Amino acid sequence: MKAPKGYKFSGISSGIKKKGLDLGLIFFEKPMLCVAAFTKNLLKSNSIIISQKHLKESSNKVRCIIVNSGCANTACGKNGLKDTEEICNQLAKKLKINSEEVLIASTGVIGEPLPKNKIIFNLSNLISGLSSDKNSIINFATAIMTTDTRYKVVYKEVKVKNKKKTLLCIAKGSGMIAPQLELYKPSATMLVFLLTDIAFSRSQMSQIMYKIIIPHFNSFSIDGDTSPNDTIFFVSNNCLGDKLNKKELNMIEEYIENICKEMILKLLFDGEGVTKVIKIVIKNCNVKEAKIISNTVANSLLVKTAFYGGDPNWGRILSACGRSGVNFRIDKVNIWIGRYQVVKNGNSNFISDEDVSKEMKKNYYEVIIDLGKNKNSDPFVFYTTDLSTKYVEINSMYKT
Amino acid sequence: MKAPKGYKFSGISSGIKKKGLDLGLIFFEKPMLCVAAFTKNLLKSNSIIISQKHLKESSNKVRCIIVNSGCANTACGKNGLKDTEEICNQLAKKLKINSEEVLIASTGVIGEPLPKNKIIFNLSNLISGLSSDKNSIINFATAIMTTDTRYKVVYKEVKVKNKKKTLLCIAKGSGMIAPQLELYKPSATMLVFLLTDIAFSRSQMSQIMYKIIIPHFNSFSIDGDTSPNDTIFFVSNNCLGDKLNKKELNMIEEYIENICKEMILKLLFDGEGVTKVIKIVIKNCNVKEAKIISNTVANSLLVKTAFYGGDPNWGRILSACGRSGVNFRIDKVNIWIGRYQVVKNGNSNFISDEDVSKEMKKNYYEVIIDLGKNKNSDPFVFYTTDLSTKYVEINSMYKT
Repeated sequence: MKAPKGYKFSGISSGIKKKGLDLGLIFFEKPMLCVAAFTKNLLKSNSIIISQKHLKESSNKVRCIIVNSGCANTACGKNGLKDTEEICNQLAKKLKINSEEVLIASTGVIGEPLPKNKIIFNLSNLISGLSSDKNSIINFATAIMTTDTRYKVVYKEVKVKNKKKTLLCIAKGSGMIAPQLELYKPSATMLVFLLTDIAFSRSQMSQIMYKIIIPHFNSFSIDGDTSPNDTIFFVSNNCLGDKLNKKELNMIEEYIENICKEMILKLLFDGEGVTKVIKIVIKNCNVKEAKIISNTVANSLLVKTAFYGGDPNWGRILSACGRSGVNFRIDKVNIWIGRYQVVKNGNSNFISDEDVSKEMKKNYYEVIIDLGKNKNSDPFVFYTTDLSTKYVEINSMYKT
Repeated sequence: MKAPKGYKFSGISSGIKKKGLDLGLIFFEKPMLCVAAFTKNLLKSNSIIISQKHLKESSNKVRCIIVNSGCANTACGKNGLKDTEEICNQLAKKLKINSEEVLIASTGVIGEPLPKNKIIFNLSNLISGLSSDKNSIINFATAIMTTDTRYKVVYKEVKVKNKKKTLLCIAKGSGMIAPQLELYKPSATMLVFLLTDIAFSRSQMSQIMYKIIIPHFNSFSIDGDTSPNDTIFFVSNNCLGDKLNKKELNMIEEYIENICKEMILKLLFDGEGVTKVIKIVIKNCNVKEAKIISNTVANSLLVKTAFYGGDPNWGRILSACGRSGVNFRIDKVNIWIGRYQVVKNGNSNFISDEDVSKEMKKNYYEVIIDLGKNKNSDPFVFYTTDLSTKYVEINSMYKT
């Protein structure tokens, strides 16, 4: 793992959290192009509001991203926006850049004011830690964690016009995960930083964000709760002047797609209290309704607890489809859990509970739901997790 | 507690469940009028399909309701409907009535065939137990339980035209509870039997069902999972020929409303793993959007786990409103937990965590969410429960 050309990282402890790293910075040596996606939640972090403002003014010459964990900087009083701006101003001053060139992201408890003074006091320390070495990347990736148990980095090298280029993706997120992101409009929060020294044009970046990154990061749920802080920053070192042809772009898109897939699985497997990850595939159903059905199944407490226990209670999956609000014929529905078809034409296929349970005790398997409705539709994929007693323990005393 | 005039009850053990009572019968000495409401889930129990058919043919001369626990009689193979009909036929034969005069309801695991032979074998035993005494009512109320820890009966006496009349409501339901019922169109399941010797007309009964019973029983959720078996049977001994005037009807409606409220609280407090019941009140918002918001808050895992721990993480409530899909202005939102206003104009009102937590450790309290949107709207009430580690334990090994 190494930094893409032009990027430096730092992660320190500033006392926002009781212990551990809690403040991170990515610094760009040259102004870079940034395309962003933010939560659809009407409640929005002050950090998102300020980042949106700065992107509007200066998205083609972004110079750094400051990120804190331990505080969502959301619904935290009248001074929230002003405090956020002051942090950006102070950081810009120390880095000798303009404050619109600073982006900011936050994750943690909603409703508590960002400890502005602690952050400002530690800026020099944060800046002095900047480096492009592996440890700095890890420090940054660690500083943005909340209930995450491990830092999450996906790294790929790709050859473009005979030059080695780097795609580095850093993310966090383990609870309050059910992202619903929108391009360039501004929730735990999932924070994703996809950083590269490939020089895309703005339209190429927007297209990749819209076509690949957003659909992937919107395709999973840990607990169904979309955060007010979800943010993806996709940053490209466009000073380097690559002019990508279609073939090169296609190749890079495939890399990015694989990075997204790999990162989503990292997020899922490190979800709060997660012991199992389930890939739900909806077949023969139009996308709009497949989204509703997969969401209903993915967030059903009875389905998620059955996943946890490996309890072969497939009736709960069928019942969740039936209550989703989507109209379909029950007698056309077929459902597979792993390699067993448990539902045939809307009825039990009489597979032994023992066999189904064995499949459901694996830590990763597929549930295929064929609705037999729209025959030419592409399969729709959505990931979910089980719901464990540990999840309840973690979240019943998050703040206390 | 005593039976309304003309009703007899029985509850026995027939071996559907490993132990305990599992088969119940209510017998009407004279044909009675029945108005019913069934789940909106597209997946429907064979018991519901047959009851719907019988009601179509004979809703003004219903003679009995047979109910089993331990098996949902849903998605259980091709013979499901035929088996259900055979049970009704055999019961009708023994009772010397027509089989369309039999109604049936089931609750339990989805996907397992109803043990028809065990039931038919035990019909004589079931019939011989029929009685109008208190013990028989309790036996019936116990025989329909699944994960319920106690039977649920609400009983009221009311004077109509100087005669003592009786309203008896028996219900079950502790998991898979998020009823969405529809009048006369046919999920754990909530089963409700409201039985009376007041002689309503059909149109009076439909109106009470539509105006009072359905809205109340649709106004709460334990786990957000609407069952394929939810059923309400409202039965009136209309042979008795009361001709109710408006004043009498209003008085009786008030009684029925109180019965519904009392029964809902019984169901909520006995919900799977429930330690707390929360009344959510949405103010200044139109009904359609208030339903969406209250449902989102009521079913949010993060909100429900915070309720469980008494964790003063009110930001989760505000965030759930924000992700609900309803459009409103965050800066107009005010939220109270018990007697403390935690959110003022979309921001923290800086109440101490300790105070809020004290309120949230009570086993019953109100959460008021004022959206400041539609000023003349009536408050919308929806009940929910906390989500405990015990809920997860119960439901991760329900079938195994």
